[in-house]
Amino acid sequence: MEQNKTKIKISSKQEDYSQWYLDVAKAWDLFEYSPTPGCIVFKPKAVTLWEKMKLEMNRDLMFLWVQNLYLPLLIPMSFFEKEKEHVEGFAPELAVVTIGWWNELDDKLAIRPTSETMFCEYFRWELQSYRDLPILTNQWCNIFRWEKRTRPFLRTAEFHWQEWHTLHETKVEANNFSLDILHNVYAKNLKEFMAIDWIAWQKSESEKFAGAEKTYTYEPMMSNWRALQICTSHLLWQWFMKQFDVSFQWREWVKEFPSYTSWGLSTRSIWWLISSHSDQKWLIIPPKMSEYSAVILPIFWKDNFEAVDNYIKDISKNLIWEFNTNWIPVKWEYFKAFVWANWSKIMVDYRDARFWEKITDFELSGYPVAIVVGQKEMEENLCTVISRITWEKIQVKVSEVSATVEDFFSKWQAQLFAASKARLENNIVPCYSIEEIWKAIEDSKFAIYEWDASDNIKDSKLEAEIKDKFKATTRCIPNEWQFKTIDDFELKRKDTIKVIIARAF
Amino acid sequence: MEQNKTKIKISSKQEDYSQWYLDVAKAWDLFEYSPTPGCIVFKPKAVTLWEKMKLEMNRDLMFLWVQNLYLPLLIPMSFFEKEKEHVEGFAPELAVVTIGWWNELDDKLAIRPTSETMFCEYFRWELQSYRDLPILTNQWCNIFRWEKRTRPFLRTAEFHWQEWHTLHETKVEANNFSLDILHNVYAKNLKEFMAIDWIAWQKSESEKFAGAEKTYTYEPMMSNWRALQICTSHLLWQWFMKQFDVSFQWREWVKEFPSYTSWGLSTRSIWWLISSHSDQKWLIIPPKMSEYSAVILPIFWKDNFEAVDNYIKDISKNLIWEFNTNWIPVKWEYFKAFVWANWSKIMVDYRDARFWEKITDFELSGYPVAIVVGQKEMEENLCTVISRITWEKIQVKVSEVSATVEDFFSKWQAQLFAASKARLENNIVPCYSIEEIWKAIEDSKFAIYEWDASDNIKDSKLEAEIKDKFKATTRCIPNEWQFKTIDDFELKRKDTIKVIIARAF
Repeated sequence: MEQNKTKIKISSKQEDYSQWYLDVAKAWDLFEYSPTPGCIVFKPKAVTLWEKMKLEMNRDLMFLWVQNLYLPLLIPMSFFEKEKEHVEGFAPELAVVTIGWWNELDDKLAIRPTSETMFCEYFRWELQSYRDLPILTNQWCNIFRWEKRTRPFLRTAEFHWQEWHTLHETKVEANNFSLDILHNVYAKNLKEFMAIDWIAWQKSESEKFAGAEKTYTYEPMMSNWRALQICTSHLLWQWFMKQFDVSFQWREWVKEFPSYTSWGLSTRSIWWLISSHSDQKWLIIPPKMSEYSAVILPIFWKDNFEAVDNYIKDISKNLIWEFNTNWIPVKWEYFKAFVWANWSKIMVDYRDARFWEKITDFELSGYPVAIVVGQKEMEENLCTVISRITWEKIQVKVSEVSATVEDFFSKWQAQLFAASKARLENNIVPCYSIEEIWKAIEDSKFAIYEWDASDNIKDSKLEAEIKDKFKATTRCIPNEWQFKTIDDFELKRKDTIKVIIARAF
Repeated sequence: MEQNKTKIKISSKQEDYSQWYLDVAKAWDLFEYSPTPGCIVFKPKAVTLWEKMKLEMNRDLMFLWVQNLYLPLLIPMSFFEKEKEHVEGFAPELAVVTIGWWNELDDKLAIRPTSETMFCEYFRWELQSYRDLPILTNQWCNIFRWEKRTRPFLRTAEFHWQEWHTLHETKVEANNFSLDILHNVYAKNLKEFMAIDWIAWQKSESEKFAGAEKTYTYEPMMSNWRALQICTSHLLWQWFMKQFDVSFQWREWVKEFPSYTSWGLSTRSIWWLISSHSDQKWLIIPPKMSEYSAVILPIFWKDNFEAVDNYIKDISKNLIWEFNTNWIPVKWEYFKAFVWANWSKIMVDYRDARFWEKITDFELSGYPVAIVVGQKEMEENLCTVISRITWEKIQVKVSEVSATVEDFFSKWQAQLFAASKARLENNIVPCYSIEEIWKAIEDSKFAIYEWDASDNIKDSKLEAEIKDKFKATTRCIPNEWQFKTIDDFELKRKDTIKVIIARAF
């Protein structure tokens, strides 16, 4: 809440989306530039967002029996060379350590750009019999790739992610597990917590990850009406397994290769969280992702401070709506915090400052609800509850504070998701010709088009043409559970499929 | 719970403590050797331990208003050179990246061996006025230092830690904050969760961190009666501040340097957690640090499976003793888990295996309590609750399961702490001559001795002599709140202080 010292002008979202994003992220103290080239400082607000995602995802992973482990940061270069396509894809981006233990290293070490090779090496030791399958592992870690053009959170040399790597006995089982993850982890968290809707499903042949059997993708529509790939998942099947000789004794005692999947979600999510929801003026974070659920703003003077303080203690007792409280006041002089067992927190702004200063800082904070408490409220046994978004203001009895805050909270969460859903739903255009695609792209829409599934070469040629002419790409082949526009889009020919074409951010 | 496939012989704890530790950690699946030199794979059990510590410490840090941020992994070499003593200390251990963005880098980048220099750089941008103080930050991250001799968790090239860095207006305030941390974070977590007692306080002049005004340390007695430094904290005061020109406008508009403190706890803690508590045969983890609070072992056959399953559901309702449950059964075929909001978890071993297989795996697991449920128990509306340590076995009514488990749980936690406390308390020997120190060290004791506080040179000479002759070092100058032996140790001369001398692990 020290943003008042930074008076940054926010550029127009319409005219310069990229600069608008930078201004918003800077003004609301999410990052700082770093003296290390291509990197940023993740400031506390950004770390809190990432920790929230981690907490939710870890809970989901546990229910799927996925275990977190941690493999080394540095990967021997010889590993990359086992998988030619892989090394070619990553070689230019590697940060390499050449000297170790006071000597030139024979096998140089690269800071991980992704960990497939390391996981394969690990799986080779771990996997013996079919009884060991499935092996379901996940890793939270930092990643390093030199990037030509960096932008805070969206693309930086160092970033953080969650990468999971699973082995299954059969290809069908691997694919089914992918579906479980899709529904129970990514889809759920994107919708429920991050309030973002998207189009999901397979990438086309030419757009999928090199060496993967299938690549799945999530493509939301950003608030500049462009597509963005936010997490990808790969059914890698047996290719890596064969290169690294990861195999098991099958039931009939035949050597068999397992089916491999890998998935990831990165701190890029901070980027789309901010840029999806924020408007011209304010940083907007979905309430379920907000560090503080509410901020209490007391108005007091010397003589009534103790009374106001006691009144706030009474209110806090009424605010505990989910679990028993566990609160301890913070020691430092300006703020105090109340905390729930599930990490939902309330901050009390006890600073000896004017009310307008406190309300301005609340405006800038991104937190969803303010509760104003002063002499007047105290005398009438009331509180004034303010929603930061709608600026709706209600006076309620102390016993009703909890319900009111919760109501503001969930209304706003639902509203943000509805906006994200509507943006996507209202901007998908059925196209039956190249000309129609062209018009849709120019109008900042997603085009849905009919694709010849039986003729891969024809597809690729068309994709190349669209990419070249319109700077647009096939984003995905959507699956059945999608939007009405997609469902209603009629396939005219046999053996054809629906594809979404759009410009990416 | 796949340890039954690894049949590792555990070496004698008495005869070869180092090998015993390695055998225990390997047999109970905490690590795997890695193809990257000097590194290990942190297996899921180890990651879970570290995540538990992180969760507890983050809660405490929040109450102290300390914020988590994240600074880059790679530090420009020029930063190290700003602080001569610092670079000399770390230079041989640095892993350096020389090429970036397809060119030789002018300012080479080192993987962080610690982040003081980066924090100072960050603080220089952040700090302007005294109103910005205190700045209280913490970082959870990976660290890399080449090491000559590595040992899993105790000393590896890559490890994880929490490093906090705080700036204060005055030296007194900085020191007071250090005391807060000592009492409210480290001391609390070491005692309450990790069940480890220690001697704490200042390092002597010759043993403190280079450039620090004061170094505080925690020294438990390991189960081989040697000392080990488990976390250090430094009142760095203004030295780094001056090198990096971190200053602020003081109240009277004079430029002033703030007082700097830094503290850390690393994944080395996994080492002392295992080696403090485990006995010759078993991995022992304090129940509060255990991933699963209890394991339910059902005995069933085809005809009664459904009945047993329902019976377990009834029991689970009675097991929720802390918060409302939130449980969802796990999908994979063998195990299910019940979960509480605070991440306390119960596992149900639904494998279609013989009872002795299930009980053996429980023995190997390190989890504190088993609840056996079969036809017999069901008919009598009972459960059999087993403590893994004492092998105490009680038949209790379903309504009493919760209280029984909690009782086993807290008894064992208390017992482990008592053992750690007793080990230390009973092995401190008052020494009034060099000969007595010699005898104490030879007997694997901690010696308490009288030190001439007014004569630093004399101290150093004596320290060097002891180090040289006995391979023992001054571990710390203990403070007032310690053990009876220390309190009773009488100072014979004026201007003297008490010091603890011991061999370190």
